[in-house]
Amino acid sequence: MKLATIERNGRQSPALFLDDGRICDLQAVAQAADPASLPFALPRRGDLAMPDLAAGGAATWDWCRRLAGQAGAAQVQPGSYRLLAPVPHPPKNIFCLGRNYREHIQEDNVSRNLNTDVPEHPQFFTKPWTSIAAHEEPIRYDTRVTRRLDYEVELAVVIGKGGRDIPAAEAMDHVFGYSILNDVSARDLQKRHDQWFKGKALDGNCPFGPWIVSPQDIGDPHALAISLSVNGELRQNANTRDMIFDIARTIESLSAGLTLEPGDVIATGTPSGVGYAMNPRQWLKDGDWVECRVEKIGVLGNRVEQIG
Amino acid sequence: MKLATIERNGRQSPALFLDDGRICDLQAVAQAADPASLPFALPRRGDLAMPDLAAGGAATWDWCRRLAGQAGAAQVQPGSYRLLAPVPHPPKNIFCLGRNYREHIQEDNVSRNLNTDVPEHPQFFTKPWTSIAAHEEPIRYDTRVTRRLDYEVELAVVIGKGGRDIPAAEAMDHVFGYSILNDVSARDLQKRHDQWFKGKALDGNCPFGPWIVSPQDIGDPHALAISLSVNGELRQNANTRDMIFDIARTIESLSAGLTLEPGDVIATGTPSGVGYAMNPRQWLKDGDWVECRVEKIGVLGNRVEQIG
Repeated sequence: MKLATIERNGRQSPALFLDDGRICDLQAVAQAADPASLPFALPRRGDLAMPDLAAGGAATWDWCRRLAGQAGAAQVQPGSYRLLAPVPHPPKNIFCLGRNYREHIQEDNVSRNLNTDVPEHPQFFTKPWTSIAAHEEPIRYDTRVTRRLDYEVELAVVIGKGGRDIPAAEAMDHVFGYSILNDVSARDLQKRHDQWFKGKALDGNCPFGPWIVSPQDIGDPHALAISLSVNGELRQNANTRDMIFDIARTIESLSAGLTLEPGDVIATGTPSGVGYAMNPRQWLKDGDWVECRVEKIGVLGNRVEQIG
Repeated sequence: MKLATIERNGRQSPALFLDDGRICDLQAVAQAADPASLPFALPRRGDLAMPDLAAGGAATWDWCRRLAGQAGAAQVQPGSYRLLAPVPHPPKNIFCLGRNYREHIQEDNVSRNLNTDVPEHPQFFTKPWTSIAAHEEPIRYDTRVTRRLDYEVELAVVIGKGGRDIPAAEAMDHVFGYSILNDVSARDLQKRHDQWFKGKALDGNCPFGPWIVSPQDIGDPHALAISLSVNGELRQNANTRDMIFDIARTIESLSAGLTLEPGDVIATGTPSGVGYAMNPRQWLKDGDWVECRVEKIGVLGNRVEQIG
């Protein structure tokens, strides 16, 4: 059972992907339901979107499980929709962690002839919603803007119940679910502009999806195989247990004095194996097929497309 | 003539503040108008908001000027509304420039015993919408989160017509208007988390407003006195002509490969005089009154309030 966002007839809607292949349009389900029976509030104006569902937290997943038992609830025909990123427009830029896997820090040191320590506090930066690409949407790039495009597979956390000053001990109650994110990075811009934002923010440089899996289905999020391949060649291959700052500590640190909202997304950092640390360095190029895998979630695949 | 966002009866609406003191509720005006007569598209769902007006660019200001000549168009009574930030929820995090005034870089070098050069490319980072505070809304802070709160007055640019890969020569056509922004910064967090984001992103740490002034009323945006005082003591006092990257170059650099949207906000960097570079260093404290001034725009004032 997975939650995704789809587009049909020019309209976006959250959708429930069931294990037997059925797909339910949750906008239609919610509109037909008694609002008092829903575990989340319908938006006062506008369409139902993933952040509305996320606000319901675990109760939203319970409701999805009940829906799964009902035959024919607002079924979507295969081929009648387009898959979008699971949260196409989060309320804020996507939060990202830098340098959160020990071996990635080591390869970074070797590659740049540095000797930096493991950070004592998480390094946060952001990617704007305009950088998001759905599963199978191209990672477009323009050589007039960047010539050093690189990949970074990451476990993405989608926030459910919002909050500020969330202690680590309560942080996991604020996780709505998990997805996969490719923190595509223009290394030349990342270096040139000093702060990382510009090199992380280009259009299409944030493949995200294909869907959200519930905490119940994930179990321990720090015991997931995570890998990335380019044209079938394995480049990154690690386990989320190797994170330096685990998800609870990350949420505690990030939410200190900063309000997290339902639908906010946190990318939890990438393991070793990125292209700029290879010898010789490898950059993504036109036609490359980049596939990110996280155990129990699935595959996020995107083709690189040079547009200029 | 200024554009602001107000809240009345629990509903947000863009409002036109006229020089004679009249205030027009533009939501009401737009709803009563023939849609074909409007210089911007009404949102398909939900309320009219500042990004919708910004999408109309210069034509929106022309429409406002025509409205000004009509008596009694959807007038708002004084005291019946609350002033919000002019763009309460921009489509992306607010874009900010670091180190964009020469004397600020010099004071930074002296303060930290460094010798860094003037950057060759703009340094971009972001502030989330949850950090925004309206004019006269408190800058709240919690000593358990930060003990080194500092101020930074900046000229804010609100994007009108969106776009990507905008050349400097066309960039000013994409400016909808100008406002004032205080890039309040938690210096301890800014340093501790390495990347600047976390120290720039706390709730209430982005006073922004009180309104937007048109390019026509501003004239040359690089000839504006810009200053900040704390409890009446002048701390920052400069002119926007001293920017290293002017607005056109900033937009060109930022929009390279990155789509800007109507209602996006760019804070153009702060001049010298920040608290951390004073000797001895000065941090904002409970009860301080911080006043930002930019010529031809007005005054953005906020009181500092310790909440923990």
